[in-house]
Amino acid sequence: MIFHIAVDVGGTQLRAACYPIDQNQPSQIARISTAHPSIPPYTRLEQLIQSVWPNTGSVESIAVAAPGPLDPYEGIIFEAPNIPDWIDLPIRNLLEKRFQVPVALGNDANLAALGEWMFGAGRSHHYIIYLTISTGIGGGVIIDDRLLLGKHGLAAELGHVTIIPEGPMCGCGQRGHLEAIASGTGITHWVAEQLGNGVPSVLHNTPNINAKVIAEAARAGDQLSQAAFTRAGSFIGLAITNYLHIFNPTIIILGGGVSHSWDLFIEPLRSAIRQNVMNPHYLGDLTITKAELSDDAGLFGALALARSQNFTRR
Amino acid sequence: MIFHIAVDVGGTQLRAACYPIDQNQPSQIARISTAHPSIPPYTRLEQLIQSVWPNTGSVESIAVAAPGPLDPYEGIIFEAPNIPDWIDLPIRNLLEKRFQVPVALGNDANLAALGEWMFGAGRSHHYIIYLTISTGIGGGVIIDDRLLLGKHGLAAELGHVTIIPEGPMCGCGQRGHLEAIASGTGITHWVAEQLGNGVPSVLHNTPNINAKVIAEAARAGDQLSQAAFTRAGSFIGLAITNYLHIFNPTIIILGGGVSHSWDLFIEPLRSAIRQNVMNPHYLGDLTITKAELSDDAGLFGALALARSQNFTRR
Repeated sequence: MIFHIAVDVGGTQLRAACYPIDQNQPSQIARISTAHPSIPPYTRLEQLIQSVWPNTGSVESIAVAAPGPLDPYEGIIFEAPNIPDWIDLPIRNLLEKRFQVPVALGNDANLAALGEWMFGAGRSHHYIIYLTISTGIGGGVIIDDRLLLGKHGLAAELGHVTIIPEGPMCGCGQRGHLEAIASGTGITHWVAEQLGNGVPSVLHNTPNINAKVIAEAARAGDQLSQAAFTRAGSFIGLAITNYLHIFNPTIIILGGGVSHSWDLFIEPLRSAIRQNVMNPHYLGDLTITKAELSDDAGLFGALALARSQNFTRR
Repeated sequence: MIFHIAVDVGGTQLRAACYPIDQNQPSQIARISTAHPSIPPYTRLEQLIQSVWPNTGSVESIAVAAPGPLDPYEGIIFEAPNIPDWIDLPIRNLLEKRFQVPVALGNDANLAALGEWMFGAGRSHHYIIYLTISTGIGGGVIIDDRLLLGKHGLAAELGHVTIIPEGPMCGCGQRGHLEAIASGTGITHWVAEQLGNGVPSVLHNTPNINAKVIAEAARAGDQLSQAAFTRAGSFIGLAITNYLHIFNPTIIILGGGVSHSWDLFIEPLRSAIRQNVMNPHYLGDLTITKAELSDDAGLFGALALARSQNFTRR
């Protein structure tokens, strides 16, 4: 039997799974913490892959989803959030040398888009915008069944576009990006600011607020918390409208932790699109939906990469 | 001998040229006004094509560049600025019936990008952002040597992205778009507003201001006019930064009338990119340059389309 090994690298967890090449159910799957008191993360990763290696048969390829920035063509991770050791890590070469099979690398949000296209909400679509909204906002774009990568694989940073010039500080160090406004972090900062201004809210008594706590308060009727999601939804809708004009897709897929607050932001989001779209032709066959793969998006994305051709650049 | 016929439809002028399939110099070229007291524009167009038809040899295809919105896959012009008769005009079917050769249709800004890629400033590049800045702002995107079209061919409307939420009114009816801020029209509106506010300027004595007049005043030292181009350049730079994060291209090509004021806006534009880019990897091999094809962009774009495969959609 022939297998693909899919790997999902996160700052907190490393996951790996071994899939028979014609099946979507793994024959082996494992998950370990990235950090360890004495073993460096790259060694942990090698050990994890070894642990899911099939006992019989052969491995055709290993595909790795990792947080960016990274170069998918060269297989190099420039830096990885919460893994400070990994600066310009040539992960493809290292893993190919160790395991003697071809290795492919991709940005996790890009690969989540590829996973949704192959296995999830984007099946039967050829033009897809995927946004993952959690502590940050990542993106992936499928155009005519191909993943948008750009010259160095740095494309589709859909959370890092300016929505409010000179607006709030973004995790990337710039200002006013969609991520700074509408990610879980952005929502939390906005609520903290409003609390500081004395806006009434049940959250004045809450020590550590975050997007999940705000969502619970919103569902319990807290007006400030509801306004926070309305605001985020409106700005995400505005950004999506830009992406309609830029890409003319047929489906918008929303993943990440904040997408679980769908009920709190989807109406303002849809309303912003209706109000801001320049031409009804963009909306004719447009679907806006939740991601289907959720927690396994990274593994499925890596599997989709393994089953696609490897990245090549002109 | 075998020929392509390239056609450039504008609200003011219709142009057509007949090119031997292996040459970039036309064997015939003609240009007429779109409007006529008694002959409708579509009939004018047929007559123009007939006038450049080769006397000997055969025509392999006709390619038409037209202002959008249009469907390049179906060959339908939804509407054409300054040609009120053309609503949902099935121009491809009409021309194919009349001339009995295959006809291809494309958005003029998209095709100008394709022309720059094949014949102009974008030769040797595979990832290109093209902006044409004149009364409006149009766009074209080449990704991995393919034109970005989207599901219905409505993609790459790079002038119609929100730069200032609730900002100035755009030609499309929405607010705060790049076109509303930094096109010739946007520059002119901003200057008119400043004049209305009593800002000192030599233009208080000028009856009909436009971007060209403002550029001349700027070059003669008028501070308001200089500020207008600095402002436009900064916002175009901000939008380009977004497009770097979205597409990771290697070249930005600027065409259209306003690009002739290069000296007045290029430094603020470059400065805005340097200030707003999230990561120096985007700038490593980035070129920002003027379009090379200028007035003939439409014809060269149509010729590039004729020489490419026709548009097909999944």
